[in-house]
Amino acid sequence: MIKRYTRKEMGQVWSSENRFTQMLNVEKAVAFVQGSKKIIPKKAAQAIQSKARFSVSGIQKLEEKTRHDVSAFVQNVSSYVGKPWGAYVHYGLTSSDVLDTALSLQIKEGALIVQKELQHLKKVLKTLIQKNKRTLCTGRTHGMHAEPTTFSFKLLGFLSELVRAENSFKQAVSEGALGMVSGPVGNYSSSSSDLEKAVCRRLKLSPEPVSTQVLPRDRHARIVFSISLILTALERLAVELRHLQRTEVSEVFEGFSKNQQGSSSMPHKKNPISAENITGLSRLLRSYLQAVMENIVLWHERDISHSSVERVIFPDAFILCDYALSRMTQLLKNLKVNTKRMKENLLSSGGEVFSSQILLTLIQKGVDRQEAYSWVQKAAHGGSSFEEGLKKTPAKKYIGSKLWKEIFSGQAVLDKLEKTFQKKWMTF
Amino acid sequence: MIKRYTRKEMGQVWSSENRFTQMLNVEKAVAFVQGSKKIIPKKAAQAIQSKARFSVSGIQKLEEKTRHDVSAFVQNVSSYVGKPWGAYVHYGLTSSDVLDTALSLQIKEGALIVQKELQHLKKVLKTLIQKNKRTLCTGRTHGMHAEPTTFSFKLLGFLSELVRAENSFKQAVSEGALGMVSGPVGNYSSSSSDLEKAVCRRLKLSPEPVSTQVLPRDRHARIVFSISLILTALERLAVELRHLQRTEVSEVFEGFSKNQQGSSSMPHKKNPISAENITGLSRLLRSYLQAVMENIVLWHERDISHSSVERVIFPDAFILCDYALSRMTQLLKNLKVNTKRMKENLLSSGGEVFSSQILLTLIQKGVDRQEAYSWVQKAAHGGSSFEEGLKKTPAKKYIGSKLWKEIFSGQAVLDKLEKTFQKKWMTF
Amino acid sequence: MIKRYTRKEMGQVWSSENRFTQMLNVEKAVAFVQGSKKIIPKKAAQAIQSKARFSVSGIQKLEEKTRHDVSAFVQNVSSYVGKPWGAYVHYGLTSSDVLDTALSLQIKEGALIVQKELQHLKKVLKTLIQKNKRTLCTGRTHGMHAEPTTFSFKLLGFLSELVRAENSFKQAVSEGALGMVSGPVGNYSSSSSDLEKAVCRRLKLSPEPVSTQVLPRDRHARIVFSISLILTALERLAVELRHLQRTEVSEVFEGFSKNQQGSSSMPHKKNPISAENITGLSRLLRSYLQAVMENIVLWHERDISHSSVERVIFPDAFILCDYALSRMTQLLKNLKVNTKRMKENLLSSGGEVFSSQILLTLIQKGVDRQEAYSWVQKAAHGGSSFEEGLKKTPAKKYIGSKLWKEIFSGQAVLDKLEKTFQKKWMTF
Amino acid sequence: MIKRYTRKEMGQVWSSENRFTQMLNVEKAVAFVQGSKKIIPKKAAQAIQSKARFSVSGIQKLEEKTRHDVSAFVQNVSSYVGKPWGAYVHYGLTSSDVLDTALSLQIKEGALIVQKELQHLKKVLKTLIQKNKRTLCTGRTHGMHAEPTTFSFKLLGFLSELVRAENSFKQAVSEGALGMVSGPVGNYSSSSSDLEKAVCRRLKLSPEPVSTQVLPRDRHARIVFSISLILTALERLAVELRHLQRTEVSEVFEGFSKNQQGSSSMPHKKNPISAENITGLSRLLRSYLQAVMENIVLWHERDISHSSVERVIFPDAFILCDYALSRMTQLLKNLKVNTKRMKENLLSSGGEVFSSQILLTLIQKGVDRQEAYSWVQKAAHGGSSFEEGLKKTPAKKYIGSKLWKEIFSGQAVLDKLEKTFQKKWMTF
Repeated sequence: MIKRYTRKEMGQVWSSENRFTQMLNVEKAVAFVQGSKKIIPKKAAQAIQSKARFSVSGIQKLEEKTRHDVSAFVQNVSSYVGKPWGAYVHYGLTSSDVLDTALSLQIKEGALIVQKELQHLKKVLKTLIQKNKRTLCTGRTHGMHAEPTTFSFKLLGFLSELVRAENSFKQAVSEGALGMVSGPVGNYSSSSSDLEKAVCRRLKLSPEPVSTQVLPRDRHARIVFSISLILTALERLAVELRHLQRTEVSEVFEGFSKNQQGSSSMPHKKNPISAENITGLSRLLRSYLQAVMENIVLWHERDISHSSVERVIFPDAFILCDYALSRMTQLLKNLKVNTKRMKENLLSSGGEVFSSQILLTLIQKGVDRQEAYSWVQKAAHGGSSFEEGLKKTPAKKYIGSKLWKEIFSGQAVLDKLEKTFQKKWMTF
Repeated sequence: MIKRYTRKEMGQVWSSENRFTQMLNVEKAVAFVQGSKKIIPKKAAQAIQSKARFSVSGIQKLEEKTRHDVSAFVQNVSSYVGKPWGAYVHYGLTSSDVLDTALSLQIKEGALIVQKELQHLKKVLKTLIQKNKRTLCTGRTHGMHAEPTTFSFKLLGFLSELVRAENSFKQAVSEGALGMVSGPVGNYSSSSSDLEKAVCRRLKLSPEPVSTQVLPRDRHARIVFSISLILTALERLAVELRHLQRTEVSEVFEGFSKNQQGSSSMPHKKNPISAENITGLSRLLRSYLQAVMENIVLWHERDISHSSVERVIFPDAFILCDYALSRMTQLLKNLKVNTKRMKENLLSSGGEVFSSQILLTLIQKGVDRQEAYSWVQKAAHGGSSFEEGLKKTPAKKYIGSKLWKEIFSGQAVLDKLEKTFQKKWMTF
Repeated sequence: MIKRYTRKEMGQVWSSENRFTQMLNVEKAVAFVQGSKKIIPKKAAQAIQSKARFSVSGIQKLEEKTRHDVSAFVQNVSSYVGKPWGAYVHYGLTSSDVLDTALSLQIKEGALIVQKELQHLKKVLKTLIQKNKRTLCTGRTHGMHAEPTTFSFKLLGFLSELVRAENSFKQAVSEGALGMVSGPVGNYSSSSSDLEKAVCRRLKLSPEPVSTQVLPRDRHARIVFSISLILTALERLAVELRHLQRTEVSEVFEGFSKNQQGSSSMPHKKNPISAENITGLSRLLRSYLQAVMENIVLWHERDISHSSVERVIFPDAFILCDYALSRMTQLLKNLKVNTKRMKENLLSSGGEVFSSQILLTLIQKGVDRQEAYSWVQKAAHGGSSFEEGLKKTPAKKYIGSKLWKEIFSGQAVLDKLEKTFQKKWMTF
Repeated sequence: MIKRYTRKEMGQVWSSENRFTQMLNVEKAVAFVQGSKKIIPKKAAQAIQSKARFSVSGIQKLEEKTRHDVSAFVQNVSSYVGKPWGAYVHYGLTSSDVLDTALSLQIKEGALIVQKELQHLKKVLKTLIQKNKRTLCTGRTHGMHAEPTTFSFKLLGFLSELVRAENSFKQAVSEGALGMVSGPVGNYSSSSSDLEKAVCRRLKLSPEPVSTQVLPRDRHARIVFSISLILTALERLAVELRHLQRTEVSEVFEGFSKNQQGSSSMPHKKNPISAENITGLSRLLRSYLQAVMENIVLWHERDISHSSVERVIFPDAFILCDYALSRMTQLLKNLKVNTKRMKENLLSSGGEVFSSQILLTLIQKGVDRQEAYSWVQKAAHGGSSFEEGLKKTPAKKYIGSKLWKEIFSGQAVLDKLEKTFQKKWMTF
């Protein structure tokens, strides 16, 4: 069912076809370097450069016999190179050299798409931020009205988290998707670290400093962790939007196309289904994390237990991340923001959201903190609106009516919020 | 920091003192049976029954020397029994026989407390249900108003889930907390399955049919899974209450004691902190699940890697479960339900929540489904209230004004809801 | 890449085709019951029974427009039924009624295949057990030689665990894969629990006692947990076999077909790749558990965040379980057991594995436990073989040479082991 | 039971006492800056600097009344400062400013201890590496003999992983443990980002660029992830040592003190219990990861559900990490390496481990790859030893007897291994 979430370009990266293409790129790079270092005959290297290719179906047929996919691949490629030079395909290599390095190449391809999608998303998010610098709305803690904020300020937190996730991802990929030509048990018995470096340079990968027979799997765990952080950032935003779309809140709405149906039984429904979809996808990624963490502890110079995990999780992680990013971008592009409702909600609780401002003002005016707190709490828990309640306390004596008005209209806070926001915004 | 969540009775179950007490119970039961089967001298068995005891500090001193806790325990107990019969303490046993069987005894003790707390909670929940049989409120999907329901109907789902979790827990404990006297590698070389059965009977435990040197750890995983299901049931309820307490919804409130402070800076705040606390505790339990699942795959007849996991997770799981149950019970006892607000919210969306009833009624009256759907959708997405919008469609012709009124007041649905509820309620 | 692990029959269960087939079965069962209860015209019910079908591509085309898969499905099916009766397809239902009940039907189909595979596996395992009742081998704790056991005894533990997992699975499916026709928010506003019961009877499912708009997701979590327990049971066996196949141990070997290649660079290698593959698959299942646990806590009467998780995890879980079971069955069928080597390994440590028997015998002969322990420990840590070392202690005086020989040849223990085994075996 | 694993210095960091100490440090730093910026009276700032302190029991008493720990703390501290200046304690702050910033300070303290322990461990590991540069041993894949390596080469991989984990940890702490004085909902309504910067400078923390009411929890997830990577690195090493200590392998042994007892029933046992203990602790950390990932998605400007998770997990994570590091350091310090046995094991398989060298040599001498592979495979699977088997193939003709001998003694490979190792070693 992953198919449903597979976007074309990313699907291509994780196709069998492309997996073999990247494996071939590794074999060719190795042969090239071996040729130039006279480890194999120059002619063998040239023949491999010019003739090596593969047939997916051919490999599959061979694999049924050999029950070893790399052996099948090598035989198939060798047959295209022909005798005698075909024998030099995969010379001095072990399967993992090819598989792990090719996986790194696939990861790098996938990462480019993810980063492209991240740029789209950030752009849409920034546009939304810029449009809402003076959109006053309610900051909520515990799901309860707390203090005023602006919609831009709110969104800036998500942008900031996304940028952190992006940085983690870039670092994880650049430090995680390495190349390796260290041979069986990583002992270079049939290669050398010079050869490895040259091959990696050709493939634009950093070489692994110390491998076993495989690249150390903590590198792969970091990559999946960083993808999960991208998804979690999306999820936090998705959950925010789901909250803001609740019927009682109604501050934002996912766009709704003309023929779309919200519910097969309830025609009135317009639901935050994209946000909910993303929430679920993030759960998937978070759970994958567990499996890749367990993959780190392979036996000795490696066992192959990580392989069945990675065959499922690496394609899935990139495909789901790509899909979720693109879906969030669409969601934000079409998001309807009801700024009027935001203001109404903020003021709906009789000025309670300004209680902390009142408290501070009172203390500034010289009232004892405990005493000020008790006035404000009494006003808030009174029964009538906070503003009305407060009028019945001695607070009124300490706060002039102009200031009182500025506070309770939200104007005082908006100007301050915009200034603070602007300082932070400059750094993005 | 687990201390903060430790309630006295449950804390006692997982104390060092009680751990050794249960280990001693196992040693004594074994000696008793061995005596009666003449495996050890009758006098040895008698001496162990009457004199065996332990000193926690004595054991700790010995453990520093032996670096083996069971050896230290056995030496300490033997010293109380004295020569010559002390030598028969732990006769024919291996550490795991004692440790695993004692852990099962601790689990059973802990389970009793959990079940007691479950009874309290169910009782409070049932009271709440009975009080709210005619409390009409909004059923929400996607966080959006969907259709009417009653608060009792809502709560019944949580009760039902809790009962399932309770059943799972009881089954998991009764099938998971077993006794074992199978000796090294579980081969009974120095005991017998008859002996094992007799010991288990004395300890009121079922004997493990096939052990390695330890009880199979899938049994323990089932127990922790079932605890996690209890917590998840609490979490789902907690999240429901958090949603209903949101400022904009305001349908329920956690009780708030006279001197309690909601926020150090915002005096007006009354927050659903108990519900949030429980939400977090459920996360903890859910994560523990991973570690106990990994514990299942021990090497050969066992390694000891599960031990460090279980030393942390078993006490924590029971302590946190006990605490969360008791906290939820308090929360529900003091819960303020604003039934008036529930009704207001239901009607606030201009009758949208009745759209599915309208749709069905129209089809019953012979309107084509697609056509009916389009009228209703148009009314819902129109801009004016749903009821107003609907009046402008041909729907009005098909629904008489008495029926129209009954639908839009919620009366029609309430009577039906109560009847359906009653049928289900009878089974609890 | 899940494709690689998809066996045909199980793949079919989770195909789009079959998903719609099961959804259609639900729609038809509902229409049938509605017809017989005169909720819809008899003729509508008959038309739906005889004409309702669907076209996958037709649905997909409609979904692009409606962006709601059930609406698309209903429209497509209705069009086959034709006017006027097509309007009665999906009458009084909400999407989840159909989706969740259809998922339960898919789960039941998948469960049948899993159970069939479990039977195969158990049969092969039992054959292996019966063949090895007198195959003496080493019981190991901490990876170290501990005490003698038999290969059958060892395998019996895995059989026992598998049977437990099977029972959990059967229970989880029968209590988890339920039917539901409770309508929007589960309030039966447009259906009834009588209707629900009748529909469920027709579909051979138990009805959900109290639903929200969806089946409660703790039921689904139990199913995935039970699948994970099957996989963990396989994993524990796989890890045992991997250990026994280690070069230094060499007690068992995975079969190796004639043309198979173990390593592309190291021609001598025959690796436990099936066992390693299964180890990885178990990690995957274990991680999925996390996501389905999080799915339980949906908002209010449901949100749709569970859907994207389940679209991936349910097919994957069943497909991977099916594959792993079948692969383990093949592995065991072709497993080579080196009984000679098992005996050699047992005796290789100079009789150390018999140290506990010696200890017990000495205590039985009246030696003080601490003293006996010190002789045996000295013999074991001496430098020469245990048997030789022991001869230098006073132990020799207490154990006659016939008994000495019986102990150190393993004969004494084998007879006892077989007897104990036989008692347990009878219960399987 | 976490107590068992608590080392003194780290325990102190996570004590209630120290938590309040760090909270006090935050309050004092804020007051200092507020005084210098004339936000509060200079005298108030001075009084707070000189008189502010707290009493743990005093706070606890107040908390029973207020049911809000920060309020209780603030009241207690204020009482020490006295009237009138005590009212300025916590001026303009919200609880999270203090709690989150204090947690960051605790994390930094804990991190220093972790890093100190990491240095100890790396030092011991490096010593072990330097001693074993010419210790030939077996590289194993799939648990099977693969190719020769050296013990140093093996250990270098673990050192390399540890260094990566250390770098991740340092980065995660420096980017994760930030300071924050942004007030309710992070809107700076009662503070300013200038104030925040000055306070953070005073506390030697980086300020959070964009917070909600709390520091974003992805930062905390990164910290726990990085701790889990340290543990996983230890676990991989622990599992390696457990494998090498297996009775059949016997290449290394955990040290065993004079009075230590390995097993209460089997006196001969010396078990890798430290390595197994560490294996379990790593499982714990891996599972904690799940909970801190879920903590990221708080509602709106925050809910408090993360708090109950972090109260358990942060102390536990640091305490267990500290303990595991120290235990691994002890393990390595006392590790017995049996280099003789390592060589014996390597040669025990009749030269099979040299098969890849043979294959390469044959291809270099001009033999067709497929043909060479078939000779070598035949020799390996023959029945007699690999070397003997190989003599019967045409291979003998292509490899001279001097070279033959150098290969099969391991000498050829050792010289090459040492050279490669040396190059890599230089970079550590």
